[in-house]
Amino acid sequence: VRTVAGVLEAALSLILKEPVKISSAGRTDAGVHAIGQVVSFSTLRAFPFDRLCIALNSELPDDLSVREITIVGDDFSARFSALERTYVYAILNRREPSALLARRAFHVWLPLDVDAMLAAAPHLLGERDFRSFCGVLPESGATVRTLRRLEITRRGDLIRIEMAADGFLHRMVRTIVGTLVECGSGRRTAESLASIVAARDRAASGNTAPAHGLYLAGVRYEGYDSYCEAPIFEHGR
Amino acid sequence: VRTVAGVLEAALSLILKEPVKISSAGRTDAGVHAIGQVVSFSTLRAFPFDRLCIALNSELPDDLSVREITIVGDDFSARFSALERTYVYAILNRREPSALLARRAFHVWLPLDVDAMLAAAPHLLGERDFRSFCGVLPESGATVRTLRRLEITRRGDLIRIEMAADGFLHRMVRTIVGTLVECGSGRRTAESLASIVAARDRAASGNTAPAHGLYLAGVRYEGYDSYCEAPIFEHGR
Repeated sequence: VRTVAGVLEAALSLILKEPVKISSAGRTDAGVHAIGQVVSFSTLRAFPFDRLCIALNSELPDDLSVREITIVGDDFSARFSALERTYVYAILNRREPSALLARRAFHVWLPLDVDAMLAAAPHLLGERDFRSFCGVLPESGATVRTLRRLEITRRGDLIRIEMAADGFLHRMVRTIVGTLVECGSGRRTAESLASIVAARDRAASGNTAPAHGLYLAGVRYEGYDSYCEAPIFEHGR
Repeated sequence: VRTVAGVLEAALSLILKEPVKISSAGRTDAGVHAIGQVVSFSTLRAFPFDRLCIALNSELPDDLSVREITIVGDDFSARFSALERTYVYAILNRREPSALLARRAFHVWLPLDVDAMLAAAPHLLGERDFRSFCGVLPESGATVRTLRRLEITRRGDLIRIEMAADGFLHRMVRTIVGTLVECGSGRRTAESLASIVAARDRAASGNTAPAHGLYLAGVRYEGYDSYCEAPIFEHGR
């Protein structure tokens, strides 16, 4: 299976002429986009540092690119030093599909009421046990996370959902989005979210929204934030 | 070869149970995107008109979608009734490439001076012989077109070029863009455009910009305009 980590490690290993293993800040399942992904690796090679980003991008395929490279301390880990992850989810909410957004946004043709979706937010924000929104349980079994931000806005045909937390469980963003979509279409009430959370059971929540609407937008560290806007929301007229 | 027209004709023929030939308003070479394309066809079948758009989209692959369908007079031709076509060209102008824009914008890493590009516009606007910007000559041999609008704007890393004309020659937009990029990077002066136009020779103009940055944005008719913004410029925060 071709993975982002595998392709990146192969390019780094080729350039640095030694096997390189990376640590990634945020999970990205197949089909998920990443704009603000952060990875770390260590090497003893003396490759000219200012040319590494250009060398890497010329080696990488066009669906994977590196924005910047910085030297960090030995104790830094892209995964374990992260303080907060931000994901953005894009929904195309109109009757007709869009060829250019087919793999960039989740097409929901039923009209969605953003206010009804927003009414569910108070039941999800804060420190909670998100087990009802978890696909594969983490090895530790710990399913408590702190959801610090949940914003839902409409711009024309597109609905943009942004979530920030200290960490996310497997498929947590997509399952929350799938459940919010059911609130927005009237199939579920915002108040029902309280009992879904309390159930601590994946069967209580809604469908998992598809991977292709999801963007890992950024990772925050002490003194650094990789946040970038998803291209479909970035350059409006 | 798989073409937009071929895929659309196959879906229409399947639904209407008769061979359908379409007429398209604007040319889209391989790799070019179309948001505001208009096509016309005639049929004697009595398919329930209000369900045709939904039936068609469920038959079409996800990289081709139909926004709306309208009944027109017998004398209407998507191609010959068109009064004006508008194309938008997207350039990503920064050092690093973008995975998500790789097939949606032309990556130019040399810094481009938009003012220098705009200075070339007066030499191109209006009714002119665009033979110097024409790939394959039209059968008629007529290479005079009227360029009514040429706008160049920068939004962050993206440069947006919009051109409207009564019609465009083969590769005309891409050759104008390639020449403007050479003005923007300082390889060519804006004033040199006057002699390029006068030369009536493809060898006088610049490189053809790649297809994947080009969007057919809209076609204007008497009383109707199909114009849509390209998704990368549509939904800014």
